[in-house]
Amino acid sequence: MNYQLRLDIVQKKLRKRKIDVLLVANPENRRYLSGYTARDHGISESSGILFIPARGKARLLTDFRYQLQAEYETDMEVVLYRKGLIPLLETLLSAENSRRCLAFESNYTLHSFSLKLSALAEKLQSTLVPVTDFIEKLRVIKSQNEIELLSRSVLLNERVFKTIHHTLTPEMTELDIAMAVESAMLQAGAEAPSFKTIVAAGDNSANPHAVPTRRTVGKNNPITIDMGLVLKGYCSDMTRNFVIGKPDKRYFEIHRLVRSAQKAGIAAVRAGVTAAQVDRAARKIIADGGYSKYFGHSLGHGVGLAVHEEPRVTSRSRRQLRTGMVITIEPGIYLPGWGGVRLENMVVVRDDGCQVLNRDETWLDI
Amino acid sequence: MNYQLRLDIVQKKLRKRKIDVLLVANPENRRYLSGYTARDHGISESSGILFIPARGKARLLTDFRYQLQAEYETDMEVVLYRKGLIPLLETLLSAENSRRCLAFESNYTLHSFSLKLSALAEKLQSTLVPVTDFIEKLRVIKSQNEIELLSRSVLLNERVFKTIHHTLTPEMTELDIAMAVESAMLQAGAEAPSFKTIVAAGDNSANPHAVPTRRTVGKNNPITIDMGLVLKGYCSDMTRNFVIGKPDKRYFEIHRLVRSAQKAGIAAVRAGVTAAQVDRAARKIIADGGYSKYFGHSLGHGVGLAVHEEPRVTSRSRRQLRTGMVITIEPGIYLPGWGGVRLENMVVVRDDGCQVLNRDETWLDI
Repeated sequence: MNYQLRLDIVQKKLRKRKIDVLLVANPENRRYLSGYTARDHGISESSGILFIPARGKARLLTDFRYQLQAEYETDMEVVLYRKGLIPLLETLLSAENSRRCLAFESNYTLHSFSLKLSALAEKLQSTLVPVTDFIEKLRVIKSQNEIELLSRSVLLNERVFKTIHHTLTPEMTELDIAMAVESAMLQAGAEAPSFKTIVAAGDNSANPHAVPTRRTVGKNNPITIDMGLVLKGYCSDMTRNFVIGKPDKRYFEIHRLVRSAQKAGIAAVRAGVTAAQVDRAARKIIADGGYSKYFGHSLGHGVGLAVHEEPRVTSRSRRQLRTGMVITIEPGIYLPGWGGVRLENMVVVRDDGCQVLNRDETWLDI
Repeated sequence: MNYQLRLDIVQKKLRKRKIDVLLVANPENRRYLSGYTARDHGISESSGILFIPARGKARLLTDFRYQLQAEYETDMEVVLYRKGLIPLLETLLSAENSRRCLAFESNYTLHSFSLKLSALAEKLQSTLVPVTDFIEKLRVIKSQNEIELLSRSVLLNERVFKTIHHTLTPEMTELDIAMAVESAMLQAGAEAPSFKTIVAAGDNSANPHAVPTRRTVGKNNPITIDMGLVLKGYCSDMTRNFVIGKPDKRYFEIHRLVRSAQKAGIAAVRAGVTAAQVDRAARKIIADGGYSKYFGHSLGHGVGLAVHEEPRVTSRSRRQLRTGMVITIEPGIYLPGWGGVRLENMVVVRDDGCQVLNRDETWLDI
């Protein structure tokens, strides 16, 4: 990836907005601009912050624990904070010629930390500016290179699913299967799962965000597997639904309805339409089938360095889709006591439609 | 757990501080007060918020995806937000008789969300109060019941380590071992690992927060395994260091020095001393051994429902330790190019000293 080019764009944007220094704490934004792959153990345990002046060299600020990794992974100068980030920021900002306007990421800064930044800004007589999608706006449109990586991530994820699916038996527990999936991802070369794998059978599959239990999946039950992996930083996200044994009539009805909704959603995607229009196209199919109140979540979300990112594909989003955005289309129907079916693919928005990144349709059309 | 008792204490505290409603978003605080076990997929994707009035019934606010889990796991009334949290809060607060003072968790609220809360408070003519350790203050002192669970978590973690250690070979990669550890944890009955397992051999072990690679661990290298699991919500955290093959002279020297530092740290723990005094007791041993600059992180941290929580055991913390706190003691020495050794145990602070929760000393005294 050409990190310098991305930094140039950011610095130009900073000068345009008259911001002197931008602090980048969000781990995906950090990686997008520097190649530094560390993750944060929760938002209150940062593994580093980029210090990006409007002109001159950007630096990566981190602590002792991450020093070697930071120096190895990035070309930026690495500066360690030994007495906390605020004292280091004070030193760095004091040395900057222009420190009138300091910006921070409002969507990845705790309220408590923003108070500390305020106090520092006051001390240095700087202006403090919260920004909400400074880097995210760049990330939302994927380059050809990024789409290639996302595509490889999706195909590897499909391969892992296929391998695991061959080994499934009704005696396995949801947890057994989730562990097998994540282990196969790592064996196949993924950096990590992109989120905790969901495996849910029978009534547990009526929870859209089910946690795998120690119950066996059994025969003739709807089984949901929602899984994704990270490949060179880029996430995949896919949901498949199937039955071990013989699906009943209701299962066929629901699965086919969800699949129709997914197809309608995919057919609605192209540059220029709003996210809400796409959501509505899929939701209408489910509503017409009589299951409107059993599809309570939004249709999809953007995917990239983060598994959930902009644009959100919700019924209320007036955001226009643009060429190069990558989103999921994942309608579902959840019947408490019976179970649920969700089907999720990833697509790239194009001028005249979209390109589905998933290739294996085995478990979609039944 | 007696959630009602905990809620009673919180509500009493709210009345004393003249707060009318407290919003609890931190997942561990939420679980501590309600038993609701859902985790958040990052701070910007909440799986629910507790709405705790100073008098009357607390409620759990969440969305469609978590409804069934929330209703199953807690006795609280579950209220779904369909158009986002802010509109629901407006409805609930408007119905409260007293809504003059609304408190939120400054350490688990994004700056961007705090702006939305501000706007809402202004609209309702309420006062908005950030609180930083309202629930954490209760959590920091563990009950006998909690200590029992933490002890079981530590012992199960030790058992998993022992089982895995028997199976290790120099041909395994760091990642192979990390996967085997996490899989064994789940097989043994853990809810989850309490953090991503660290397995690092040779020079990679010089990174305190190493990420397991696809390199084999090899013979005669220092190998660090830092692992922990969650049992009924309670976390363990343990680091062991060993060599497959024959340790060299330097390894013995460093390992023994770190172990001496750990013992000095443990010996310094008792109610009434400050966290800094404990840190210094251990740090002095390493400094006297000539490795002061190779021990760049703090000595330890609290453990409970969160794997990293209060109190932090740092060289600058003037916080007094109190009976019933549970902390780690984990000094380390990291030599770039060679590797590192860290040894970590968990202890319960007592009036006259401390109780080490770890029982297996096999890999400590070499």
